[in-house]
Amino acid sequence: MQLMEEKILAEGEVLPGGILKVGSFLNQQIDVAFLRSVAAEVARLFDGCGVNKILTIESSGIAIATAVGLAMNAPVVFAKKHKTSNVDGDVYSATVHSFTHNIDNTIMVSKDYLTEKDCVLIVDDFLAAGNALKGLIALCRQAGAKIAGCSCAIEKGFQKGGDEVRAMGIRCESLAIIDEMNDTDIKFRS
Amino acid sequence: MQLMEEKILAEGEVLPGGILKVGSFLNQQIDVAFLRSVAAEVARLFDGCGVNKILTIESSGIAIATAVGLAMNAPVVFAKKHKTSNVDGDVYSATVHSFTHNIDNTIMVSKDYLTEKDCVLIVDDFLAAGNALKGLIALCRQAGAKIAGCSCAIEKGFQKGGDEVRAMGIRCESLAIIDEMNDTDIKFRS
Repeated sequence: MQLMEEKILAEGEVLPGGILKVGSFLNQQIDVAFLRSVAAEVARLFDGCGVNKILTIESSGIAIATAVGLAMNAPVVFAKKHKTSNVDGDVYSATVHSFTHNIDNTIMVSKDYLTEKDCVLIVDDFLAAGNALKGLIALCRQAGAKIAGCSCAIEKGFQKGGDEVRAMGIRCESLAIIDEMNDTDIKFRS
Repeated sequence: MQLMEEKILAEGEVLPGGILKVGSFLNQQIDVAFLRSVAAEVARLFDGCGVNKILTIESSGIAIATAVGLAMNAPVVFAKKHKTSNVDGDVYSATVHSFTHNIDNTIMVSKDYLTEKDCVLIVDDFLAAGNALKGLIALCRQAGAKIAGCSCAIEKGFQKGGDEVRAMGIRCESLAIIDEMNDTDIKFRS
């Protein structure tokens, strides 16, 4: 998506440690006109795929998932994140390692909100190692839900997550894929 | 807002300990047609007030704040929550006690995204003791931003938070105010 690449080049900032800061428009602060365009593009990509539910993980995925849900008229479900493995009630759960915070989180979703009748589009802001996506895929599989695919705003193509998800046979549409990144230059996959 | 009260009566569930479960439409799972109506109502209430920024706190406020931002064409900023008081960089911060988890969180927002030029509408899903709102109000005051008001989806009127915020001279519009609640009955403020 050209608009996403332009926005990253205009407002993104590469920090030490391979961190891409997009706080001015995608997380922390959200540019709503931009978000509306992003959601319309995701809706266009998955038009006709029978999507009846949007699944994301708290907290930075919620804004984009909400906009996509509004664009596709599909309910949005967000998996909750807990630092303990104490899971109560009737939930599906999976363990997800966070590289950002270097901890394991248990993510979970109530069995009421994810079922075998669902055709799910998994949405998130960033895709790097792909641990969050793999956890959300695991929740869908536990529920017996169909997975229409995944869509992330920004993929770090130099990490393996996106390609690993694609190798699982799951459609994965990232709106911008960064293949190389340093202090002075960002190279997108063409 | 009649629609909010009807939805609470139809799908809300009162759990032991004074907890109102609205996971089927407001948090955990989001009914997007309902969310669109809620956002339109908040936009109507604050129309003409010069709002140029929506402020919320992660994570359950993000969905409603995003919808309000889209409805009002105003950028959305969400304060981040941390369990430690180690705050780095140029941020405004405040301490917020969470009764749900019985811990103190430090909430913070970058000084880049909240300034004295802003006229802020503070949005959240639940208003009970009002600690989250008071923390967000403190961040606005540190930034020298004007506060147009606060709007929450559901207020527990039998707790003091909403009335305390109003006593501070801040407009506080809750879409439904619950004055009494038990296993069999929910009474709204008229």
